Formats: sequence, structure tokens, C-alpha cells
Amino acid sequence: MYRCGASLSLLLFFMIYLKEVQDLVEIFSHFPGIGPKAAQRFVFYLLRQPAKNRTEFIERLKALENIYSCSICHNFSNHKICPICQDSQRDHSIVLIVARPQDLIAIEKMGHYKGLYHVLERELEPIEQANFAKIITNNLLTRLKKNKEIKELIFGFDLNIKGEGMALYISNLIKRDSELKKRLKLSKMARGLPLGAEIEYADEITLGDALKNRKNI
Amino acid sequence: MYRCGASLSLLLFFMIYLKEVQDLVEIFSHFPGIGPKAAQRFVFYLLRQPAKNRTEFIERLKALENIYSCSICHNFSNHKICPICQDSQRDHSIVLIVARPQDLIAIEKMGHYKGLYHVLERELEPIEQANFAKIITNNLLTRLKKNKEIKELIFGFDLNIKGEGMALYISNLIKRDSELKKRLKLSKMARGLPLGAEIEYADEITLGDALKNRKNI
Repeated sequence: MYRCGASLSLLLFFMIYLKEVQDLVEIFSHFPGIGPKAAQRFVFYLLRQPAKNRTEFIERLKALENIYSCSICHNFSNHKICPICQDSQRDHSIVLIVARPQDLIAIEKMGHYKGLYHVLERELEPIEQANFAKIITNNLLTRLKKNKEIKELIFGFDLNIKGEGMALYISNLIKRDSELKKRLKLSKMARGLPLGAEIEYADEITLGDALKNRKNI
Repeated sequence: MYRCGASLSLLLFFMIYLKEVQDLVEIFSHFPGIGPKAAQRFVFYLLRQPAKNRTEFIERLKALENIYSCSICHNFSNHKICPICQDSQRDHSIVLIVARPQDLIAIEKMGHYKGLYHVLERELEPIEQANFAKIITNNLLTRLKKNKEIKELIFGFDLNIKGEGMALYISNLIKRDSELKKRLKLSKMARGLPLGAEIEYADEITLGDALKNRKNI
């Protein structure tokens, strides 16, 4: 449950602590990016808050029960099918696949994209790709096979090894299915220089992509 | 409420987000060391948990209501007066003052110290020392004046500018009161080389302290 290095000191720590504190430290220790020390700070922070703030926190946590994972795209919303999937004005032939709901929000904020989305349950470590297959099969692949209206799948993953790995894995899955391979166009977002980039400091790969994908003006 | 740089993007972010998510992101953003991005990750992490895990989290948060800040030393415990302050076997003439409850735990774990404690409400930034006065006056100073049994005050603060500042500030407050000045012995923890220290890599101040405070063997 905990990283090895922290186990011994945690054991000692749990022997002295109040049960209520140690229970909550344990829960916070599982939050993304949070170790036992930060978890401890959170609990003492909460203890220092007036009781009404803790009550409010609890009420807001309870409100999460009104949020569902959309049964089509797995985005979070107040409905079993999210407003984006329900929107007949959007282009239902294009699906943009993202690793996290935050990525969907970033793209929606921009306001230009009018297709649909598919949100993966979580971002995947390169080492996990065997288990990953199951998640993809259960969600994305089922959706793509069932819904013949979908003609294009855009990969909206981070431009790093993890993101590239995910895109490669999914495109291989699709290419293995002859019907999907024939029907679906796979695409990825354009690469190039971001706004405000200084040529001098741009990395070689980005610079190479920007040159290769140059446009006539 | 938020740092300036984050305000605009947060505003945009709040326009698209679900109310339930944004409310909780706001609460987590106030946790120590947590910005809006990490707060967002926490909420999505919670949304991905099975409902029973969230229920358990809420139950454990509710259990914090059984924890009190000791009315004497301000340590946390299940009693209005903590077991340490109630323990007649301990030396009630010595008070070790620490900045955080975690520091008390570290000292108790060691098992050698048999005096009492005083836990400050929070660690103080050097810039806050004017407001700090009030907290000290309300808690520590009142306690020291009221309880004539206390003969020694040990500073258990971190060995950095913040800790030194707090010690200096409190000792000045005490020296300004003639009765306290006369009655109380002020002390601080010994300085020297920590276990496993390599002379070659020890910093000059620590090395100087270790030499100055050398002991006959």
C-alpha cells in the first residue's frame, strides 16, 4: 500500500497517532502525488479549520454522488449521457480520444472542436499496456464497433513517451480489426511551434515538425 | 483567495466545469502546498473511486469531530485536556514549545523526553511576527503566567531562519516580563553533528557548533 521506504517510519508514526488521524492520513496518502508527509499536513490542516469548514467539505464531497461517468464517452456530467454526446448539433462522426477529463476541458475551452470525445479511465504507464488492452476493449473498442457513424478517431494525447505509447497501442488494436481499419481514419493533432516560441530555444523535434508541416501563406 | 497568476485560467475553468467539481476544487486549492491543478487531479481521482471509498472518506472526515485541541498545550487528542498534560508522572516544570503537532510526535517517538509541551497554532512566516504576538499572548504567555510551576521553556523549533525568528521573538516577550524573566530558564536543543554525518560534508555552522559544544569522554 505504501512505498517501501516510508513503511517503517509510518508504522512508528501510527503507533503514536490518534486512530482518527491515522485513518485519514492513510486515505490522503493514496491521493495522486501525495506521500505520507503531505497527507499528515492535510489532516492537521483540516483539524485547524473551524468545524463548519469541515462540514462544508463533507457536503461538497457528498455532492460528487450526483456526477456520473457518461456511458458513451466516459466524461463526467450530471447526466447518465453527457450533454456533449446528447448534442445533435455536434459532428457524431468524429471522436477525439483524451487521457484525462482535464484534457477534454482544455479543448472545450478553446471552443473550436465540434466533434465528440472519448475519455480514458486514466492515463496509462507504458509498463501497463497489457492490462490496458482490457480497458480499451471494454470501452473504446466496443463503442467504435457498435457505432458505425464514427469515421474518424483523433488522438489527443500528451506529446511524450506515455502519450505516444497509448496512441501506438490503440492504433494497433484498430488496425488488427479489418472492419475498423477500413472505416476509421486515424489522426493526431498537428505538431509545430507553440504561441510565443523562440526559435533559438525550441527543441529539435518540435522545430523539425514545424518545418516539415510548413504551410503556404 | 487564489494566487494572481492562476485567477484568469481558473475563471475560464469554472465556466466549463460542473458546479460540484468546481466547489470541491476550490476547497482542495486551500490545502497546504496544493494549487488548482493538483486540486483538480484530487477531484477526478475521487470521482474515479468506487462510491463506497468516498463514503468511507466522508466517515473518516466526520470522525475528526472527536478530536480536540488540548486546552493547555494545544496538542490534538480525544480529550479536552490531552493525556500528556494529564499525566502526573511527567515533569510539569518543563515545557517544550514546538511549531507543529508533527514535531511533538517526532519527540514523543524518541521516548526520552518526560516534560510537557506547547504546540503553536501554526508555523509563522518571519513577516507575520506582528500578528504572531497575539497568538503567543493568548496561548503560551497566558499559560506561563498562570502556571507558576513552569520553570523551564525549551525551544524545539527548526534550525532555520523561521525557527530562529520564532525563538527570538518569544524570548524577547518573556524577557520583557520581569516575573517570567526571573522564573523561567530558556533553553534550546543542543546543536552538533547528526548521526551518520561526514565531517567533510558538514556545513560550517554545524561543525562550529559541534566543536564549541564538545564533551569530555
